[in-house]
Amino acid sequence: MTVIKRTELEALPSRYRAQFVNSLSGYKSANLVGSANPQGQPNLALVSSVVHLGADPALLAHVTRPHTVPRHTLENIEATRVYTYNAVTCQMVPQAHHSAAKFAREVSEFENVGLTPEYHPNFAAPAVVESPLSIGMELLELVPIKHNGTLLVIGQICWVKYPQAALHSDGHLDISKLDLTAISGLDHYHSIASVGRLSYPEVEHPPTPLKLDKLP
Amino acid sequence: MTVIKRTELEALPSRYRAQFVNSLSGYKSANLVGSANPQGQPNLALVSSVVHLGADPALLAHVTRPHTVPRHTLENIEATRVYTYNAVTCQMVPQAHHSAAKFAREVSEFENVGLTPEYHPNFAAPAVVESPLSIGMELLELVPIKHNGTLLVIGQICWVKYPQAALHSDGHLDISKLDLTAISGLDHYHSIASVGRLSYPEVEHPPTPLKLDKLP
Repeated sequence: MTVIKRTELEALPSRYRAQFVNSLSGYKSANLVGSANPQGQPNLALVSSVVHLGADPALLAHVTRPHTVPRHTLENIEATRVYTYNAVTCQMVPQAHHSAAKFAREVSEFENVGLTPEYHPNFAAPAVVESPLSIGMELLELVPIKHNGTLLVIGQICWVKYPQAALHSDGHLDISKLDLTAISGLDHYHSIASVGRLSYPEVEHPPTPLKLDKLP
Repeated sequence: MTVIKRTELEALPSRYRAQFVNSLSGYKSANLVGSANPQGQPNLALVSSVVHLGADPALLAHVTRPHTVPRHTLENIEATRVYTYNAVTCQMVPQAHHSAAKFAREVSEFENVGLTPEYHPNFAAPAVVESPLSIGMELLELVPIKHNGTLLVIGQICWVKYPQAALHSDGHLDISKLDLTAISGLDHYHSIASVGRLSYPEVEHPPTPLKLDKLP
């Protein structure tokens, strides 16, 4: 085991440090953010920072940098107040990763990487047809993170499109049935296998495998 | 495919909705937060919301609810300004899940779930011996999320303990070699397999498998 301290971390070359620090938080979800500008030009951006904030109201958030690739996405979100999260499957990884390239503003990442936009009724932001789990979001707040100029994009869920067959009887959506990928670091993709659910944590005894009334 | 709308989501029973909404963000990292009160009483809490904020300065954050289990942890973090993140392996899952039970303030989760605290020099918060990846954190800011009363706990990395053998030549730490788990929803655990790294995304061509000078 190696221990690296803050001063040594700060002395690392910038790209090397970015690779290292990005690896430390553990596995990250892979989501494509779908958005459109007020003229309807669609845009797609890969994010690995979607985080659950709460279920009532149903809130999700992601982190964005103001001056890099997702800027078009951020402008679209600010202008239209809506966007989608689309879970990335292992099969979609090459296209999703490609969408992170610095495409020009007038270029649709959908077209260029080979993914298909679809529109839900009365919702201006495109979803991704190829994704098995899409979420329509409405912007609530952009929270500035003063320490490094990033922004926390907080939104409320408007709608969710998901495969009914993956739903457990207690409301848990079994994403291990959707072939979703997980990211680590900046560019490392992973496949996933379920090792099971555990019972509600109780002080008196260790958790046991969860038994549900009926599983799909 | 099923589409559920906000009004239907809001009408769901509270526990069912919590299960469902918690499943939507995709795979989540599993980290144990180690902390201690000013008298040195250690505490451990499982979080699935650690997110990378930036590499320079090296910032990580997690979401916490003010009035639930991690409250002891939050009090400790506010009092001592330091804490640790400890990545959870598949083998540690039963203990990690158990640590989420509502243990009394004076009870050490370490002792009760069967994990071992260790202390780094001049650092008041305990790390978890059994974890292959521990990060010492210093509190920078607690950002209140006004929409639901949660808090974003932002900290800067003080030190990282990791296995040198998992480090790629470009700084990427290959966590797929550490047997880490990923969580989905509230209680579903997963094992992970690498499907490979991809080249830096360029507009002109799809990404290709990443070739490094030397891999460990």
